[in-house]
Amino acid sequence: MHVIIDGYGGDPEQLADENAVRVLLEQYPDLMGMTRITQPAVLRYKGTSPEDWGVSGFVMIAESHIAVHTFPERALIWADIFSCKDFEPALVLEDLKQRFTLREMDVKMLERNLEPVLAPLVLSSVEG
Amino acid sequence: MHVIIDGYGGDPEQLADENAVRVLLEQYPDLMGMTRITQPAVLRYKGTSPEDWGVSGFVMIAESHIAVHTFPERALIWADIFSCKDFEPALVLEDLKQRFTLREMDVKMLERNLEPVLAPLVLSSVEG
Repeated sequence: MHVIIDGYGGDPEQLADENAVRVLLEQYPDLMGMTRITQPAVLRYKGTSPEDWGVSGFVMIAESHIAVHTFPERALIWADIFSCKDFEPALVLEDLKQRFTLREMDVKMLERNLEPVLAPLVLSSVEG
Repeated sequence: MHVIIDGYGGDPEQLADENAVRVLLEQYPDLMGMTRITQPAVLRYKGTSPEDWGVSGFVMIAESHIAVHTFPERALIWADIFSCKDFEPALVLEDLKQRFTLREMDVKMLERNLEPVLAPLVLSSVEG
């Protein structure tokens, strides 16, 4: 399951806080019942437009990952929470909303597949 | 733009090759006209099921990222190519297909937004 969040109207100070992003990357795998396989990587970047600076963070969990990009001047966060196992996103969404005081979240959920959903599996064995 | 690829029927040997993943993470930002802001991180992992081992890789580009997870025993790759700027995904998709000899790719494209699409912006200024 891949949960994709665009969060708006957040607190610029929290969104600029590298430590807030690091703590999130440390805690969410546990909230999801998953295992971290790397330390979180967090860095501050500066884009070409003056308002496009922020914090990017990433952590790998088994076969999956969490990635976060914040834009304090836009009061914006983009978060990708990708897990090879189904998880209950409510805890993570609620924490994200509170942590950055988000006014609005656009949440998309995608299924990621292990095999082509519409593939003619019988035919492919004929090919071999 | 966020391009999400589930690729099937790939070559297990290539999918198990950490270097193939590293080269991809080094080259795709250039193909997309983007700037890498970290070195690629690539690691081999082993899941709880015997068939769930593979290679995971990640690179940050300005305000965005590329993440890849391979499953050689499933002939499978999951790739996330997320760019804050629009890019032409054809070059990347063709390279991915050839590099891992993928038989099939399920490609989804998502727009990521800087502001809530349906938000009543006028009303929010009244609130303040």
